[in-house]
Amino acid sequence: MSKTIAINAGSSSLKWQLFEMPEETVIAKGVVERIGLKDSIFTVKYGEGEKFNDILDINDHEFAVNMLLDKLTELAIIQSFDEITGVGHRVVAGGEFFKESAVIDDEAIEMIDKLAEFAPLHNPAEATVIRVFQKVLPHALNVAVFDTSFHTTMPKENYLYSIPMAYYEKYKARKYGAHGTSHRYVAERAAQLMGKPIEDLKIISCHLGNGASVTAIEGGKSIDTSMGFTPLAGVTMGTRSGDIDASLLPYIMEKEGLTDIKDMVDILNKKSGLLGLSGVSSDMREVEAAGTENSEIALKIFDNRVQKYIGSYVALMNGVDAIVFTAGIGENAPVTRRNIINGISWFGCEIDDEKNNVKGVEREISTDDSKIKVFLIPTDEEVMIARDVEALK
Amino acid sequence: MSKTIAINAGSSSLKWQLFEMPEETVIAKGVVERIGLKDSIFTVKYGEGEKFNDILDINDHEFAVNMLLDKLTELAIIQSFDEITGVGHRVVAGGEFFKESAVIDDEAIEMIDKLAEFAPLHNPAEATVIRVFQKVLPHALNVAVFDTSFHTTMPKENYLYSIPMAYYEKYKARKYGAHGTSHRYVAERAAQLMGKPIEDLKIISCHLGNGASVTAIEGGKSIDTSMGFTPLAGVTMGTRSGDIDASLLPYIMEKEGLTDIKDMVDILNKKSGLLGLSGVSSDMREVEAAGTENSEIALKIFDNRVQKYIGSYVALMNGVDAIVFTAGIGENAPVTRRNIINGISWFGCEIDDEKNNVKGVEREISTDDSKIKVFLIPTDEEVMIARDVEALK
Repeated sequence: MSKTIAINAGSSSLKWQLFEMPEETVIAKGVVERIGLKDSIFTVKYGEGEKFNDILDINDHEFAVNMLLDKLTELAIIQSFDEITGVGHRVVAGGEFFKESAVIDDEAIEMIDKLAEFAPLHNPAEATVIRVFQKVLPHALNVAVFDTSFHTTMPKENYLYSIPMAYYEKYKARKYGAHGTSHRYVAERAAQLMGKPIEDLKIISCHLGNGASVTAIEGGKSIDTSMGFTPLAGVTMGTRSGDIDASLLPYIMEKEGLTDIKDMVDILNKKSGLLGLSGVSSDMREVEAAGTENSEIALKIFDNRVQKYIGSYVALMNGVDAIVFTAGIGENAPVTRRNIINGISWFGCEIDDEKNNVKGVEREISTDDSKIKVFLIPTDEEVMIARDVEALK
Repeated sequence: MSKTIAINAGSSSLKWQLFEMPEETVIAKGVVERIGLKDSIFTVKYGEGEKFNDILDINDHEFAVNMLLDKLTELAIIQSFDEITGVGHRVVAGGEFFKESAVIDDEAIEMIDKLAEFAPLHNPAEATVIRVFQKVLPHALNVAVFDTSFHTTMPKENYLYSIPMAYYEKYKARKYGAHGTSHRYVAERAAQLMGKPIEDLKIISCHLGNGASVTAIEGGKSIDTSMGFTPLAGVTMGTRSGDIDASLLPYIMEKEGLTDIKDMVDILNKKSGLLGLSGVSSDMREVEAAGTENSEIALKIFDNRVQKYIGSYVALMNGVDAIVFTAGIGENAPVTRRNIINGISWFGCEIDDEKNNVKGVEREISTDDSKIKVFLIPTDEEVMIARDVEALK
């Protein structure tokens, strides 16, 4: 019996779940928000619906981790630090180097640092948190679970852009994708729900959250995904534009008097998508509630871009057995799921409105006649992280 | 009986075809190349395979047009300038203003000049040539036929990008597409070959030339197309990248020490696509002949991007009745056509290898069992231009 903690660290946040392994039981979970800012928020949920909250100034990730471990002891969730034998870290960018989850040794952490150029906001924060855990839990095994690893099976014709080959050869400019752990989890669950070996299946998984990506999974392997070199590309997202014509950049920069392309890309990352189109919010629920002309068009565009990616992946795999919805919007927006699927019924898919009328419940949501099975599968990246740690122990 | 000349002018070239209308008979055609450079090339084809060639310095478009008209008289193709009662000009950018072909009055030519910001290399040259014809053929009707007009029927959810709405409202930053005249022509021909009203059909047309675009045509109207704000976006082309992650721009610029985004976009327009990937050529025939690893991957990517667009448009239209190939590659590359179609056979399409084994012949190339009909239809933008002139006379 051993405990593993799954860590998802951002530049100013730290989400965690503590598992009893190999049972995969969640013993406690929580989040630390606003690290490095005033009035940081520290939350723990444990036991039978018990909660602990605190607001205080948490200056850095080291303080956050120490407070978390102390609190686990104080709340009697663990008796001693030694019970935690594994720590799994979500890492955004694994580049071409990390084709699967990896035990973190000196070489690995150096590489995670080096890959920061592909994820400048994420990898450095994750490396920091890894180092803190190595310090405070010196006996635990630290494992990195990469968002990109699942997509390293993409064939060259799908990960290369049609740009000079030297940019790939010299700078590794290519498609990496993201949300890999989520796509991997829901694809495995879909195969289990279908009672078929994943090796025999063609699955399209739609991870639709504030960030969103669609993945073509053939024989259990990602062969293409909508996110690109970074998470900016692909479908319309909460604040990200998804695919655009690159020629728009110099045009808009000139019109807006922008001189630094980074400011332009920043707008595409943070002020575009549902937020930019609707002018209301990046949150699908608020866009749905707004009822303005621009919010209506934003919703149409969201559905339409997901449909187009599904169609393109049906073409790419030359068929599809199952389509899966997951993440914030995918799990909680029945109308979006219905609009997307019933709008492409020609493929042989249809939503069962009764089965679909749920939020966050794992189930098949297509009609019995639907040739393509459609599933709602709440994602669980944390359990995948804990499993990967377990497998490497 | 009257003659109409169809003009396709570039910054240093002028292609033309002279029609007897309304019979649509081509009386003569030709091209002037290297205008404004040393050793310009002047070519005329007429009669029963007769040809006239000359190499001389042609300094500007006015000289080119005058020489062309003089030569038509000299070669006894026309007796007098007055026989030419109509001049149709291909214009690249019509913006949101020109929803169809238009008689060129003062307002129209002013607008064509103004729309130069959407096609800085093309519209100014076209406006120049229009003014020359207005001067030398004062009695002829000048008509502008826009590459973009056919796509002005796209619904808002397809022409808007997921960027701040103000960029559309203030600067008209949106998808315009291109090759409209070609897509319109082949869609009409496909409907005729099928013996069905175009209003009842869903057609995907693949204009695959050095520039390439795929269009979704529902009920005879373009509802989406792969080119974007400019012709840079969409599928892989001879030298253009097609779709990429916009985040690649700052990354590559930093690596390459580029400071002006226009230089970067120039690389995406002129040094990417088949040329950039293969390192061999922008010409599909030369890439096919090369047989290197990079040329093979370039060809795979070309097919794959067209397939993905076809799939996305099947999703968008929720079905498809016919797929059409046209333009340089579409008309002359049987292997490309077969690879694209047979790789998406799940949709219900299959190439008949015997019927497909032709270049530039108008015919159905799918098997009798193919649920989706596939056509090879050589494009004829010039006759469309002449028809539009005729309709406005």
